[in-house]
Amino acid sequence: MHEPAEILKSVEGLAREAGDILMGYYGEIHSIDYKGIGDIVTEADKASEQLITERLESRFPDYALLGEEFGMSAVQSDSCWVTDPLDGTANYAARCPIFAVAIGLLHNGIPVLGVVFDPNTDRMFSATKEGGATLNGIPIHVNDRQELDPIGLFGFGSPVLEILHPFIQKAGKGRSLGSAALHICSVASGYFDGSFDLYTKLWDIAAAAIILQEAGGSITQPSGAPLFPIAPDSSAYEGHDVPFLATNGKIHAECLSTLEENEEKQT
Amino acid sequence: MHEPAEILKSVEGLAREAGDILMGYYGEIHSIDYKGIGDIVTEADKASEQLITERLESRFPDYALLGEEFGMSAVQSDSCWVTDPLDGTANYAARCPIFAVAIGLLHNGIPVLGVVFDPNTDRMFSATKEGGATLNGIPIHVNDRQELDPIGLFGFGSPVLEILHPFIQKAGKGRSLGSAALHICSVASGYFDGSFDLYTKLWDIAAAAIILQEAGGSITQPSGAPLFPIAPDSSAYEGHDVPFLATNGKIHAECLSTLEENEEKQT
Repeated sequence: MHEPAEILKSVEGLAREAGDILMGYYGEIHSIDYKGIGDIVTEADKASEQLITERLESRFPDYALLGEEFGMSAVQSDSCWVTDPLDGTANYAARCPIFAVAIGLLHNGIPVLGVVFDPNTDRMFSATKEGGATLNGIPIHVNDRQELDPIGLFGFGSPVLEILHPFIQKAGKGRSLGSAALHICSVASGYFDGSFDLYTKLWDIAAAAIILQEAGGSITQPSGAPLFPIAPDSSAYEGHDVPFLATNGKIHAECLSTLEENEEKQT
Repeated sequence: MHEPAEILKSVEGLAREAGDILMGYYGEIHSIDYKGIGDIVTEADKASEQLITERLESRFPDYALLGEEFGMSAVQSDSCWVTDPLDGTANYAARCPIFAVAIGLLHNGIPVLGVVFDPNTDRMFSATKEGGATLNGIPIHVNDRQELDPIGLFGFGSPVLEILHPFIQKAGKGRSLGSAALHICSVASGYFDGSFDLYTKLWDIAAAAIILQEAGGSITQPSGAPLFPIAPDSSAYEGHDVPFLATNGKIHAECLSTLEENEEKQT
C-alpha cells in the first residue's frame, strides 16, 4: 500500500489536469446527454474521468476504482479510488462557473486521501488521514460556531430545500451551490457551519469527507450513524444514494436532533 | 446629463477599485457589526462605499446618490446613483468567496447604467441602456429556455426557500449563492433561467436589472407589475424591500402564473 501522504502531490496534479480538461471544454459544450432526473453528462465529464482512470489504473494497478461515469473496476482490493470527474454537472452544463474535480481514496471503506479542485477559483482542497487539511497548501479548519445560528451559512442540495424548512430556518442562511464536494469543503474551510444532502453519491462526498474530518469537522449519516467504513457489499459502490450531514463538529448533535424533530413533524 | 455609454468605463474602473478594497480586507476581517437579522456589516463594506461615494460625488456633484450603508444623499436630482459596495455580505463575513460590488445609475427612476463586479472570479458584468450587456467586454445574452424545466437553474434568496416549494419543484434546480446581484447577472449570462427574491433592496438589484434587460431578459415585481420607474417618493429609496422576479423573458409569464398558484395554495 502506498502511503497517502507520499502520493498526495501527484493526485493534486492529476486533479488539476482534469480541471484543465473541464475548462478546455467549458464554453464550447456541444453535446449534452441526460442522466437520471436533470443530471447532465457532458463530453468533458467523460474526458476528465478517462484521464483520471487511465492515470490511476496505470500507477495503482492493484487498487480498485469507482468513477461516476464508468462505475466500478474489476479489480478486487482493500484500496479503492472514488472519483467524481465533474461535481456540479448541472452548473457546468448551464455554464455557471461552480464545479469541481474530486478524487478520494478509501482503505477498507475509510477515506484516507482526498483532493477537491475548483478550477474556476483555482482552489485545491486536499487532505490525508492524520496529515491535516489544506487549501492551496495552507492549513484549513472548521469554524468555531457552537450552536445553530441564523447568521451562519449552511449548504443544501437543491432537492432537499423543499422538505426542510424548519431545519433551514434554524440552521442559518441556506446556500445551494450545486456541488456537494464544494459544500463539504466550504464547511472544512469554515465558510459554512454545515451541509446536508440526501441525494448524493459516494463519489460526491468521499474525497471531501476526509478533507472535512482533517479540518476538524464531522460527517455522518443524517441519522447520526457512522458513514464510514463503507462495507464491501454496500450499495453505495453501485451508485445508490449516500445521504450525509457534515458540520463543524460542534453543532453536529444539535443538527441531528433538529433533523429528527423535522422528521417527526412531517410524519 | 452625462451619456451613460461615455462614463461606463470609468464606473467599471471604480467597481474594480472597490473590489480591490474588499479583497484587501478579505481574510483579515477583524470587526463585525450586526444589522437587521443576520446582516453583517464589515469595515470593508464601509471602506468600499466610502471610495465609491467620494468618487461619484466628486465627478457627478449634481447627481443624487443612494448607498447601502450611508443612505440617500441630500442632492435633489433626476439622476441617482444606487450602489451596493458589498453584495453578499454574509458570504464575505463567513469568508465564502461569493460577493460583488454593484453600481447602478437611475434616470427618472429607470436604470440606464449598471456595473456588477465579482472580484473572486474577476468577472465584470456591465450594461448601458440600449448599449447591450457584456461580461468582461464580451456580449452576453439570456438563455433560450422556453418554459420552466427541472433541468434549469433558478436562483433564490435564502429566506424565500421556505415558502416556495411548489415553485422550486417546477422551476428547476434551486441555487442560492447569497448575492442577488450575482443571481440576476447569472440570468443575464444564461446560466440561470430565472431568479426570484422577496427581501432585496433597491441597491441589490438596480445595477443588475439593466444588465439583465440589455441581455434580453425581464425583471418585474413578483405580481408582474413593472418594477421601474421607481417613483421619487418610493420607500425603496429608504431601504424598503424591493421584491423581484427576473427571468430570461421567455418563461416570465409562466413564472408569474406559477407564483400566483403558489400563493393561492398558501392562502
